Amino acid sequence: MSADLDRLSFNQITADHLDLGQVIEACAEAGFGWIAPWRHKLVPDAGERIRAAGLRASSLCRGGFFPAPSAAERRERDADNRAAVDEAAALAADLLVLVCGPAPDGDLPAARRQVLEGIEALAPYAAEHGVRLGIEALHPMMIGERSVVVTLAQALDLAERFDAGEVGVVVDAYHVWWDPELERQLERAAGRVFAYHVSDWLVPTTDVLAGRGMMGDGVIDLPRLRALVDAAGYDGPIEVEVINPSNAELPIAELMARIRRSFAESS
Amino acid sequence: MSADLDRLSFNQITADHLDLGQVIEACAEAGFGWIAPWRHKLVPDAGERIRAAGLRASSLCRGGFFPAPSAAERRERDADNRAAVDEAAALAADLLVLVCGPAPDGDLPAARRQVLEGIEALAPYAAEHGVRLGIEALHPMMIGERSVVVTLAQALDLAERFDAGEVGVVVDAYHVWWDPELERQLERAAGRVFAYHVSDWLVPTTDVLAGRGMMGDGVIDLPRLRALVDAAGYDGPIEVEVINPSNAELPIAELMARIRRSFAESS
Repeated sequence: MSADLDRLSFNQITADHLDLGQVIEACAEAGFGWIAPWRHKLVPDAGERIRAAGLRASSLCRGGFFPAPSAAERRERDADNRAAVDEAAALAADLLVLVCGPAPDGDLPAARRQVLEGIEALAPYAAEHGVRLGIEALHPMMIGERSVVVTLAQALDLAERFDAGEVGVVVDAYHVWWDPELERQLERAAGRVFAYHVSDWLVPTTDVLAGRGMMGDGVIDLPRLRALVDAAGYDGPIEVEVINPSNAELPIAELMARIRRSFAESS
Repeated sequence: MSADLDRLSFNQITADHLDLGQVIEACAEAGFGWIAPWRHKLVPDAGERIRAAGLRASSLCRGGFFPAPSAAERRERDADNRAAVDEAAALAADLLVLVCGPAPDGDLPAARRQVLEGIEALAPYAAEHGVRLGIEALHPMMIGERSVVVTLAQALDLAERFDAGEVGVVVDAYHVWWDPELERQLERAAGRVFAYHVSDWLVPTTDVLAGRGMMGDGVIDLPRLRALVDAAGYDGPIEVEVINPSNAELPIAELMARIRRSFAESS
Protein backbone atom coordinates (compact mmCIF):
# COMPACT_ATOMS: atom_id res chain seq x y z
CA MET A 1 0.00 0.00 0.00
CA SER A 2 2.98 2.31 0.45
CA ALA A 3 2.80 3.28 -3.19
CA ASP A 4 -0.39 5.12 -2.25
CA LEU A 5 1.33 7.54 0.10
CA ASP A 6 1.41 10.09 -2.69
CA ARG A 7 -2.41 10.10 -2.50
CA LEU A 8 -2.49 10.93 1.21
CA SER A 9 -4.11 14.30 1.91
CA PHE A 10 -4.08 15.72 5.41
CA ASN A 11 -7.51 17.06 6.32
CA GLN A 12 -6.85 20.03 8.54
CA ILE A 13 -9.57 19.27 11.11
CA THR A 14 -7.38 16.36 12.21
CA ALA A 15 -5.16 18.98 13.84
CA ASP A 16 -7.77 21.60 14.67
CA HIS A 17 -5.61 22.90 17.53
CA LEU A 18 -3.08 24.31 15.06
CA ASP A 19 -3.31 27.19 12.63
CA LEU A 20 -3.00 26.78 8.88
CA GLY A 21 0.65 27.84 8.77
CA GLN A 22 1.60 25.20 11.32
CA VAL A 23 -0.32 22.52 9.46
CA ILE A 24 1.22 23.44 6.10
CA GLU A 25 4.69 23.24 7.62
CA ALA A 26 3.95 19.89 9.29
CA CYS A 27 2.55 18.42 6.07
CA ALA A 28 5.58 19.51 4.09
CA GLU A 29 7.97 18.13 6.70
CA ALA A 30 6.05 14.84 6.77
CA GLY A 31 6.43 14.61 3.00
CA PHE A 32 2.71 14.74 2.27
CA GLY A 33 1.67 16.08 -1.11
CA TRP A 34 -1.86 17.20 -0.29
CA ILE A 35 -3.75 19.20 2.30
CA ALA A 36 -7.49 19.86 2.79
CA PRO A 37 -7.97 23.19 4.54
CA TRP A 38 -11.07 24.21 6.49
CA ARG A 39 -12.70 27.56 5.97
CA HIS A 40 -12.49 28.67 9.60
CA LYS A 41 -8.69 28.40 9.40
CA LEU A 42 -8.12 30.21 6.11
CA VAL A 43 -5.82 33.21 5.86
CA PRO A 44 -5.75 35.60 2.89
CA ASP A 45 -2.63 34.12 1.31
CA ALA A 46 -3.51 30.50 2.06
CA GLY A 47 -3.24 29.41 -1.58
CA GLU A 48 0.22 30.91 -2.03
CA ARG A 49 1.47 29.39 1.21
CA ILE A 50 0.18 25.94 0.27
CA ARG A 51 1.81 26.10 -3.14
CA ALA A 52 5.05 27.54 -1.76
CA ALA A 53 5.31 24.52 0.54
CA GLY A 54 5.00 22.20 -2.45
CA LEU A 55 1.50 21.10 -1.50
CA ARG A 56 -1.81 21.00 -3.33
CA ALA A 57 -5.27 21.51 -1.86
CA SER A 58 -7.43 18.42 -2.41
CA SER A 59 -10.63 20.17 -1.32
CA LEU A 60 -12.02 22.98 0.77
CA CYS A 61 -14.11 22.00 3.79
CA ARG A 62 -16.85 23.09 3.76
CA GLY A 63 -19.90 24.69 2.26
CA GLY A 64 -23.54 23.71 2.44
CA PHE A 65 -25.71 24.24 5.53
CA PHE A 66 -28.50 25.18 3.15
CA PRO A 67 -31.60 24.74 5.35
CA ALA A 68 -32.63 27.78 7.39
CA PRO A 69 -35.84 28.98 8.98
CA SER A 70 -36.40 31.98 6.69
CA ALA A 71 -35.91 32.85 3.04
CA ALA A 72 -33.65 35.73 4.06
CA GLU A 73 -31.39 33.39 5.99
CA ARG A 74 -31.31 30.96 3.08
CA ARG A 75 -30.16 33.78 0.80
CA GLU A 76 -27.37 34.50 3.28
CA ARG A 77 -26.32 30.87 3.16
CA ASP A 78 -26.35 31.02 -0.64
CA ALA A 79 -24.06 34.06 -0.55
CA ASP A 80 -21.76 32.36 1.92
CA ASN A 81 -21.58 29.31 -0.33
CA ARG A 82 -20.58 31.46 -3.28
CA ALA A 83 -17.83 32.91 -1.06
CA ALA A 84 -16.74 29.35 -0.30
CA VAL A 85 -16.49 28.67 -4.04
CA ASP A 86 -14.32 31.78 -4.43
CA GLU A 87 -12.09 30.60 -1.60
CA ALA A 88 -11.75 27.12 -3.12
CA ALA A 89 -10.81 28.65 -6.47
CA ALA A 90 -8.20 30.83 -4.79
CA LEU A 91 -6.71 27.72 -3.19
CA ALA A 92 -6.72 25.98 -6.60
CA ALA A 93 -8.83 23.32 -4.90
CA ASP A 94 -11.17 21.93 -7.50
CA LEU A 95 -13.62 20.59 -4.90
CA LEU A 96 -15.89 22.19 -2.31
CA VAL A 97 -17.27 19.71 0.23
CA LEU A 98 -20.94 20.25 1.02
CA VAL A 99 -22.42 19.42 4.43
CA CYS A 100 -26.16 19.42 3.89
CA GLY A 101 -28.09 20.32 7.00
CA PRO A 102 -29.26 20.25 9.71
CA ALA A 103 -33.04 20.80 9.73
CA PRO A 104 -33.71 24.01 11.67
CA ASP A 105 -36.96 22.63 13.13
CA GLY A 106 -36.89 18.84 12.78
CA ASP A 107 -38.83 18.94 9.50
CA LEU A 108 -36.64 16.59 7.49
CA PRO A 109 -38.61 16.60 4.22
CA ALA A 110 -38.61 20.43 4.12
CA ALA A 111 -34.91 20.62 4.95
CA ARG A 112 -34.13 18.08 2.25
CA ARG A 113 -35.99 20.17 -0.32
CA GLN A 114 -33.99 23.22 0.77
CA VAL A 115 -30.76 21.28 0.27
CA LEU A 116 -31.72 20.55 -3.33
CA GLU A 117 -32.68 24.18 -3.93
CA GLY A 118 -29.39 25.33 -2.40
CA ILE A 119 -27.33 23.09 -4.66
CA GLU A 120 -29.37 24.17 -7.69
CA ALA A 121 -28.60 27.79 -6.84
CA LEU A 122 -24.90 27.15 -6.27
CA ALA A 123 -24.02 24.71 -9.06
CA PRO A 124 -23.83 27.18 -11.99
CA TYR A 125 -21.65 29.58 -9.98
CA ALA A 126 -19.32 26.76 -8.95
CA ALA A 127 -19.05 25.47 -12.52
CA GLU A 128 -18.14 28.96 -13.78
CA HIS A 129 -15.32 29.07 -11.24
CA GLY A 130 -13.98 25.58 -11.97
CA VAL A 131 -14.95 24.22 -8.57
CA ARG A 132 -16.81 20.92 -8.33
CA LEU A 133 -19.35 20.33 -5.59
CA GLY A 134 -19.06 17.17 -3.48
CA ILE A 135 -22.14 16.15 -1.49
CA GLU A 136 -21.04 14.35 1.66
CA ALA A 137 -23.46 11.95 3.31
CA LEU A 138 -22.83 12.22 7.05
CA HIS A 139 -23.50 9.44 9.54
CA PRO A 140 -27.16 9.37 10.63
CA MET A 141 -26.10 10.12 14.20
CA MET A 142 -25.20 13.62 13.00
CA ILE A 143 -28.64 14.38 11.64
CA GLY A 144 -29.55 16.64 14.56
CA GLU A 145 -26.43 18.77 14.41
CA ARG A 146 -25.05 18.63 10.88
CA SER A 147 -26.71 16.96 7.93
CA VAL A 148 -30.06 15.74 6.65
CA VAL A 149 -28.21 13.86 3.90
CA VAL A 150 -27.26 10.65 5.68
CA THR A 151 -26.87 7.94 3.05
CA LEU A 152 -24.84 7.57 -0.09
CA ALA A 153 -28.08 6.75 -1.96
CA GLN A 154 -29.50 10.09 -0.93
CA ALA A 155 -26.31 11.97 -1.91
CA LEU A 156 -26.38 10.26 -5.30
CA ASP A 157 -30.09 11.02 -5.79
CA LEU A 158 -29.11 14.67 -5.43
CA ALA A 159 -25.89 14.55 -7.44
CA GLU A 160 -27.47 12.75 -10.39
CA ARG A 161 -29.68 15.75 -11.06
CA PHE A 162 -26.56 17.62 -12.17
CA ASP A 163 -23.76 17.24 -14.69
CA ALA A 164 -21.40 14.41 -13.69
CA GLY A 165 -18.42 16.72 -14.04
CA GLU A 166 -19.89 19.33 -11.70
CA VAL A 167 -21.69 17.67 -8.79
CA GLY A 168 -20.68 14.37 -7.20
CA VAL A 169 -20.28 12.73 -3.81
CA VAL A 170 -17.71 12.63 -1.05
CA VAL A 171 -17.35 9.13 0.37
CA ASP A 172 -16.21 9.15 3.98
CA ALA A 173 -15.54 5.71 5.45
CA TYR A 174 -16.67 6.80 8.92
CA HIS A 175 -19.98 8.09 7.64
CA VAL A 176 -20.97 5.25 5.30
CA TRP A 177 -19.41 1.99 6.51
CA TRP A 178 -22.56 0.86 8.36
CA ASP A 179 -24.77 1.06 5.26
CA PRO A 180 -26.22 -2.26 4.01
CA GLU A 181 -26.55 -0.55 0.60
CA LEU A 182 -22.86 0.35 0.44
CA GLU A 183 -21.80 -2.06 -2.26
CA ARG A 184 -24.73 -1.27 -4.54
CA GLN A 185 -24.48 2.48 -4.06
CA LEU A 186 -20.73 2.60 -4.65
CA GLU A 187 -21.29 0.70 -7.87
CA ARG A 188 -23.89 3.29 -8.81
CA ALA A 189 -21.46 6.06 -7.86
CA ALA A 190 -18.98 5.24 -10.62
CA GLY A 191 -17.73 8.50 -12.08
CA ARG A 192 -19.36 10.57 -9.32
CA VAL A 193 -16.90 9.96 -6.49
CA PHE A 194 -15.06 13.26 -6.05
CA ALA A 195 -13.27 12.45 -2.78
CA TYR A 196 -12.57 9.64 -0.35
CA HIS A 197 -12.02 10.27 3.39
CA VAL A 198 -10.64 7.77 5.88
CA SER A 199 -10.61 7.33 9.66
CA ASP A 200 -11.92 4.50 11.85
CA TRP A 201 -14.92 3.69 14.06
CA LEU A 202 -13.94 3.06 17.67
CA VAL A 203 -15.85 0.67 19.93
CA PRO A 204 -17.12 2.08 22.16
CA THR A 205 -17.77 5.41 20.48
CA THR A 206 -17.69 7.96 23.23
CA ASP A 207 -18.46 11.13 21.28
CA VAL A 208 -21.00 11.54 18.50
CA LEU A 209 -19.15 14.32 16.69
CA ALA A 210 -15.50 13.95 17.63
CA GLY A 211 -14.83 10.35 18.58
CA ARG A 212 -13.06 9.07 15.48
CA GLY A 213 -10.11 6.71 15.50
CA MET A 214 -6.96 6.37 13.43
CA MET A 215 -7.20 3.87 10.58
CA GLY A 216 -6.66 0.38 11.99
CA ASP A 217 -7.71 1.32 15.54
CA GLY A 218 -11.41 0.58 14.96
CA VAL A 219 -13.74 -1.88 13.30
CA ILE A 220 -14.24 -0.54 9.77
CA ASP A 221 -13.15 -2.99 7.08
CA LEU A 222 -11.17 -0.31 5.27
CA PRO A 223 -9.56 -2.63 2.69
CA ARG A 224 -13.04 -3.78 1.57
CA LEU A 225 -14.27 -0.21 1.35
CA ARG A 226 -11.16 0.89 -0.50
CA ALA A 227 -11.70 -1.87 -3.06
CA LEU A 228 -15.25 -0.62 -3.64
CA VAL A 229 -14.06 2.98 -4.01
CA ASP A 230 -11.32 1.84 -6.41
CA ALA A 231 -13.90 -0.08 -8.42
CA ALA A 232 -15.98 3.10 -8.68
CA GLY A 233 -13.03 4.55 -10.56
CA TYR A 234 -11.80 7.00 -7.93
CA ASP A 235 -8.05 7.55 -8.11
CA GLY A 236 -7.61 10.99 -6.54
CA PRO A 237 -6.27 12.09 -3.17
CA ILE A 238 -7.43 10.23 -0.04
CA GLU A 239 -8.06 12.57 2.87
CA VAL A 240 -7.22 11.49 6.40
CA GLU A 241 -9.91 13.11 8.53
CA VAL A 242 -9.63 11.92 12.12
CA ILE A 243 -11.78 14.25 14.20
CA ASN A 244 -10.66 13.65 17.74
CA PRO A 245 -9.46 16.23 20.27
CA SER A 246 -6.94 13.76 21.65
CA ASN A 247 -4.85 14.37 18.52
CA ALA A 248 -3.80 17.62 20.17
CA GLU A 249 -1.97 15.64 22.85
CA LEU A 250 0.66 14.43 20.39
CA PRO A 251 3.45 16.66 19.08
CA ILE A 252 2.51 17.37 15.48
CA ALA A 253 5.47 15.47 13.98
CA GLU A 254 4.44 12.37 15.93
CA LEU A 255 0.84 12.76 14.83
CA MET A 256 1.96 12.97 11.21
CA ALA A 257 4.15 9.88 11.61
CA ARG A 258 1.21 7.96 13.09
CA ILE A 259 -0.99 9.04 10.20
CA ARG A 260 1.55 8.00 7.62
CA ARG A 261 1.93 4.56 9.24
CA SER A 262 -1.77 4.08 9.79
CA PHE A 263 -2.56 5.14 6.23
CA ALA A 264 0.05 2.83 4.73
CA GLU A 265 -0.94 -0.19 6.82
CA SER A 266 -4.70 0.11 7.08
CA SER A 267 -6.26 2.27 4.39
CA MET B 1 -54.55 11.62 21.56
CA SER B 2 -55.62 10.77 25.11
CA ALA B 3 -57.80 7.95 23.81
CA ASP B 4 -54.53 6.22 23.02
CA LEU B 5 -53.41 5.98 26.62
CA ASP B 6 -54.73 2.45 26.76
CA ARG B 7 -52.05 1.60 24.17
CA LEU B 8 -49.19 2.93 26.31
CA SER B 9 -46.76 0.20 27.33
CA PHE B 10 -43.96 0.95 29.75
CA ASN B 11 -40.70 -0.50 28.53
CA GLN B 12 -38.83 -1.50 31.62
CA ILE B 13 -35.41 -0.22 30.53
CA THR B 14 -36.85 3.28 30.99
CA ALA B 15 -36.53 2.61 34.74
CA ASP B 16 -33.54 0.29 34.69
CA HIS B 17 -32.64 1.33 38.24
CA LEU B 18 -35.71 -0.49 39.64
CA ASP B 19 -36.48 -4.19 39.89
CA LEU B 20 -39.41 -5.81 38.12
CA GLY B 21 -41.68 -5.80 41.20
CA GLN B 22 -41.20 -2.04 41.63
CA VAL B 23 -41.91 -1.40 37.96
CA ILE B 24 -45.06 -3.56 37.95
CA GLU B 25 -46.36 -1.67 40.99
CA ALA B 26 -45.58 1.72 39.47
CA CYS B 27 -47.25 0.81 36.15
CA ALA B 28 -50.39 -0.38 37.94
CA GLU B 29 -50.51 2.77 40.09
CA ALA B 30 -50.04 4.95 37.00
CA GLY B 31 -52.97 3.19 35.37
CA PHE B 32 -50.94 1.77 32.49
CA GLY B 33 -52.26 -1.41 30.90
CA TRP B 34 -49.05 -2.75 29.42
CA ILE B 35 -45.48 -3.45 30.39
CA ALA B 36 -42.47 -4.66 28.37
CA PRO B 37 -40.06 -6.51 30.65
CA TRP B 38 -36.38 -7.06 29.95
CA ARG B 39 -34.78 -10.44 30.40
CA HIS B 40 -32.10 -9.33 32.83
CA LYS B 41 -34.85 -8.26 35.25
CA LEU B 42 -37.05 -11.35 35.07
CA VAL B 43 -37.99 -13.31 38.19
CA PRO B 44 -39.48 -16.82 38.11
CA ASP B 45 -43.07 -15.72 38.76
CA ALA B 46 -42.89 -12.62 36.53
CA GLY B 47 -45.89 -13.64 34.42
CA GLU B 48 -48.13 -14.20 37.45
CA ARG B 49 -47.08 -10.91 39.02
CA ILE B 50 -47.77 -8.96 35.82
CA ARG B 51 -51.21 -10.53 35.43
CA ALA B 52 -52.04 -10.12 39.14
CA ALA B 53 -51.39 -6.37 38.78
CA GLY B 54 -53.87 -6.20 35.90
CA LEU B 55 -51.14 -5.69 33.30
CA ARG B 56 -50.24 -7.44 30.07
CA ALA B 57 -46.76 -7.95 28.63
CA SER B 58 -46.49 -6.31 25.21
CA SER B 59 -43.14 -7.94 24.42
CA LEU B 60 -40.05 -9.42 25.94
CA CYS B 61 -36.80 -7.54 25.36
CA ARG B 62 -34.71 -9.08 24.01
CA GLY B 63 -33.31 -12.00 22.05
CA GLY B 64 -31.01 -12.04 19.07
CA PHE B 65 -27.26 -11.34 19.29
CA PHE B 66 -26.78 -14.10 16.74
CA PRO B 67 -23.30 -13.33 15.37
CA ALA B 68 -20.42 -14.93 17.25
CA PRO B 69 -16.84 -15.84 16.40
CA SER B 70 -17.28 -19.65 16.55
CA ALA B 71 -19.93 -22.20 15.63
CA ALA B 72 -19.99 -23.39 19.25
CA GLU B 73 -20.78 -19.90 20.47
CA ARG B 74 -23.47 -19.49 17.85
CA ARG B 75 -25.08 -22.71 19.11
CA GLU B 76 -25.04 -21.24 22.62
CA ARG B 77 -26.78 -18.11 21.32
CA ASP B 78 -29.38 -20.29 19.60
CA ALA B 79 -30.08 -22.10 22.87
CA ASP B 80 -30.32 -18.81 24.73
CA ASN B 81 -32.79 -17.53 22.15
CA ARG B 82 -34.98 -20.60 22.62
CA ALA B 83 -34.87 -19.86 26.36
CA ALA B 84 -36.01 -16.30 25.58
CA VAL B 85 -38.96 -17.71 23.61
CA ASP B 86 -39.88 -19.88 26.61
CA GLU B 87 -39.70 -16.83 28.88
CA ALA B 88 -41.88 -14.76 26.52
CA ALA B 89 -44.45 -17.58 26.41
CA ALA B 90 -44.46 -17.76 30.22
CA LEU B 91 -45.14 -14.01 30.33
CA ALA B 92 -47.96 -14.47 27.80
CA ALA B 93 -46.04 -11.95 25.67
CA ASP B 94 -46.63 -12.83 22.06
CA LEU B 95 -43.54 -10.97 20.86
CA LEU B 96 -39.81 -11.43 21.35
CA VAL B 97 -37.76 -8.41 20.25
CA LEU B 98 -34.60 -9.36 18.36
CA VAL B 99 -31.46 -7.23 18.48
CA CYS B 100 -29.33 -8.47 15.62
CA GLY B 101 -25.64 -7.99 16.23
CA PRO B 102 -23.00 -6.80 16.66
CA ALA B 103 -20.31 -8.19 14.33
CA PRO B 104 -17.68 -9.88 16.50
CA ASP B 105 -14.84 -8.82 14.19
CA GLY B 106 -16.10 -5.97 12.03
CA ASP B 107 -17.06 -8.31 9.16
CA LEU B 108 -20.55 -6.95 8.49
CA PRO B 109 -21.49 -9.22 5.56
CA ALA B 110 -20.58 -12.34 7.58
CA ALA B 111 -22.44 -11.10 10.67
CA ARG B 112 -25.49 -10.32 8.55
CA ARG B 113 -25.48 -13.86 7.18
CA GLN B 114 -25.30 -15.20 10.74
CA VAL B 115 -28.31 -13.09 11.69
CA LEU B 116 -30.36 -14.70 8.94
CA GLU B 117 -29.19 -18.17 9.95
CA GLY B 118 -30.03 -17.44 13.58
CA ILE B 119 -33.56 -16.35 12.76
CA GLU B 120 -34.02 -19.36 10.48
CA ALA B 121 -33.02 -21.62 13.36
CA LEU B 122 -35.27 -19.83 15.88
CA ALA B 123 -38.43 -19.18 13.87
CA PRO B 124 -39.96 -22.71 13.94
CA TYR B 125 -39.41 -22.99 17.70
CA ALA B 126 -40.97 -19.57 18.30
CA ALA B 127 -43.97 -20.40 16.11
CA GLU B 128 -44.56 -23.63 18.03
CA HIS B 129 -44.66 -21.63 21.25
CA GLY B 130 -46.95 -18.90 19.96
CA VAL B 131 -44.27 -16.22 20.15
CA ARG B 132 -43.70 -13.90 17.18
CA LEU B 133 -40.24 -12.59 16.39
CA GLY B 134 -39.79 -8.84 15.89
CA ILE B 135 -36.61 -7.73 14.14
CA GLU B 136 -35.62 -4.30 15.41
CA ALA B 137 -33.46 -2.11 13.22
CA LEU B 138 -31.21 -0.14 15.55
CA HIS B 139 -29.73 3.26 14.77
CA PRO B 140 -26.54 2.98 12.68
CA MET B 141 -24.58 4.57 15.52
CA MET B 142 -25.13 1.33 17.48
CA ILE B 143 -23.56 -0.87 14.83
CA GLY B 144 -20.34 -1.34 16.79
CA GLU B 145 -21.99 -2.35 20.06
CA ARG B 146 -25.41 -3.79 19.27
CA SER B 147 -26.78 -4.46 15.82
CA VAL B 148 -25.74 -5.03 12.22
CA VAL B 149 -29.38 -4.52 11.20
CA VAL B 150 -29.59 -0.76 10.97
CA THR B 151 -32.39 0.10 8.54
CA LEU B 152 -36.04 -0.78 8.28
CA ALA B 153 -35.39 -1.94 4.70
CA GLN B 154 -32.87 -4.44 5.98
CA ALA B 155 -35.19 -5.66 8.76
CA LEU B 156 -37.95 -6.14 6.19
CA ASP B 157 -35.61 -7.95 3.79
CA LEU B 158 -35.07 -10.45 6.60
CA ALA B 159 -38.68 -10.62 7.83
CA GLU B 160 -40.13 -11.17 4.38
CA ARG B 161 -38.33 -14.49 4.12
CA PHE B 162 -40.73 -15.80 6.78
CA ASP B 163 -44.46 -16.16 7.36
CA ALA B 164 -46.07 -12.75 7.97
CA GLY B 165 -47.71 -14.06 11.13
CA GLU B 166 -44.42 -15.22 12.60
CA VAL B 167 -41.62 -12.78 11.81
CA GLY B 168 -42.04 -9.02 11.51
CA VAL B 169 -40.34 -5.78 12.49
CA VAL B 170 -40.17 -3.53 15.53
CA VAL B 171 -40.33 0.13 14.56
CA ASP B 172 -38.55 2.35 17.07
CA ALA B 173 -38.86 6.08 16.38
CA TYR B 174 -35.42 6.79 17.83
CA HIS B 175 -33.75 4.22 15.58
CA VAL B 176 -35.46 4.98 12.26
CA TRP B 177 -36.49 8.65 12.17
CA TRP B 178 -33.39 9.76 10.23
CA ASP B 179 -34.03 7.36 7.33
CA PRO B 180 -34.78 8.98 3.94
CA GLU B 181 -36.50 5.67 3.03
CA LEU B 182 -38.86 5.82 6.02
CA GLU B 183 -42.06 6.55 4.19
CA ARG B 184 -41.49 3.94 1.49
CA GLN B 185 -40.36 1.25 3.91
CA LEU B 186 -43.26 1.79 6.32
CA GLU B 187 -45.59 1.42 3.39
CA ARG B 188 -43.85 -1.81 2.53
CA ALA B 189 -44.11 -2.92 6.18
CA ALA B 190 -47.90 -3.11 6.17
CA GLY B 191 -48.92 -6.21 8.11
CA ARG B 192 -45.36 -6.79 9.37
CA VAL B 193 -45.18 -4.13 12.09
CA PHE B 194 -45.26 -6.06 15.36
CA ALA B 195 -44.40 -3.19 17.72
CA TYR B 196 -43.88 0.56 17.84
CA HIS B 197 -41.48 2.20 20.31
CA VAL B 198 -41.31 5.91 21.10
CA SER B 199 -38.81 8.32 22.67
CA ASP B 200 -37.14 11.43 21.26
CA TRP B 201 -33.81 12.51 19.78
CA LEU B 202 -32.10 15.21 21.80
CA VAL B 203 -29.86 17.87 20.25
CA PRO B 204 -27.09 17.61 21.18
CA THR B 205 -26.97 13.86 21.74
CA THR B 206 -24.43 13.33 24.46
CA ASP B 207 -24.47 9.54 24.73
CA VAL B 208 -24.61 7.07 21.85
CA LEU B 209 -26.41 4.33 23.76
CA ALA B 210 -28.28 6.05 26.58
CA GLY B 211 -28.98 9.62 25.55
CA ARG B 212 -32.66 9.44 24.65
CA GLY B 213 -35.24 12.08 25.44
CA MET B 214 -38.86 12.03 26.50
CA MET B 215 -41.34 12.45 23.63
CA GLY B 216 -41.62 16.14 22.80
CA ASP B 217 -38.20 17.04 24.24
CA GLY B 218 -36.33 16.39 20.99
CA VAL B 219 -36.55 16.87 17.24
CA ILE B 220 -38.33 13.76 15.94
CA ASP B 221 -41.56 14.55 14.11
CA LEU B 222 -43.47 11.92 16.10
CA PRO B 223 -46.94 12.80 14.74
CA ARG B 224 -45.68 12.23 11.17
CA LEU B 225 -44.09 8.93 12.13
CA ARG B 226 -47.19 7.85 14.04
CA ALA B 227 -49.32 8.53 10.97
CA LEU B 228 -47.03 6.32 8.88
CA VAL B 229 -47.15 3.53 11.48
CA ASP B 230 -50.95 3.83 11.65
CA ALA B 231 -51.13 3.64 7.87
CA ALA B 232 -49.10 0.42 8.00
CA GLY B 233 -52.00 -1.01 9.98
CA TYR B 234 -50.37 -1.24 13.38
CA ASP B 235 -52.85 -0.81 16.24
CA GLY B 236 -51.18 -2.62 19.13
CA PRO B 237 -49.42 -1.34 22.24
CA ILE B 238 -46.95 1.54 21.90
CA GLU B 239 -43.90 1.09 24.07
CA VAL B 240 -42.29 4.08 25.75
CA GLU B 241 -38.58 3.25 25.74
CA VAL B 242 -36.57 6.21 26.99
CA ILE B 243 -33.09 4.89 27.73
CA ASN B 244 -31.52 7.58 29.87
CA PRO B 245 -29.86 7.17 33.26
CA SER B 246 -31.23 10.56 34.35
CA ASN B 247 -34.66 8.92 34.66
CA ALA B 248 -33.38 7.45 37.94
CA GLU B 249 -33.23 10.95 39.40
CA LEU B 250 -37.03 11.26 39.42
CA PRO B 251 -39.23 9.49 41.97
CA ILE B 252 -40.93 6.72 39.98
CA ALA B 253 -44.45 8.18 40.33
CA GLU B 254 -43.20 11.48 38.87
CA LEU B 255 -41.45 9.66 36.04
CA MET B 256 -44.67 7.81 35.23
CA ALA B 257 -46.66 11.06 35.27
CA ARG B 258 -44.16 12.64 32.90
CA ILE B 259 -44.40 9.67 30.58
CA ARG B 260 -48.19 9.76 30.57
CA ARG B 261 -48.21 13.48 29.75
CA SER B 262 -45.47 13.24 27.16
CA PHE B 263 -47.15 10.26 25.50
CA ALA B 264 -50.54 11.96 25.37
CA GLU B 265 -49.19 15.25 24.04
CA SER B 266 -46.42 14.20 21.69
CA SER B 267 -46.69 10.62 20.50
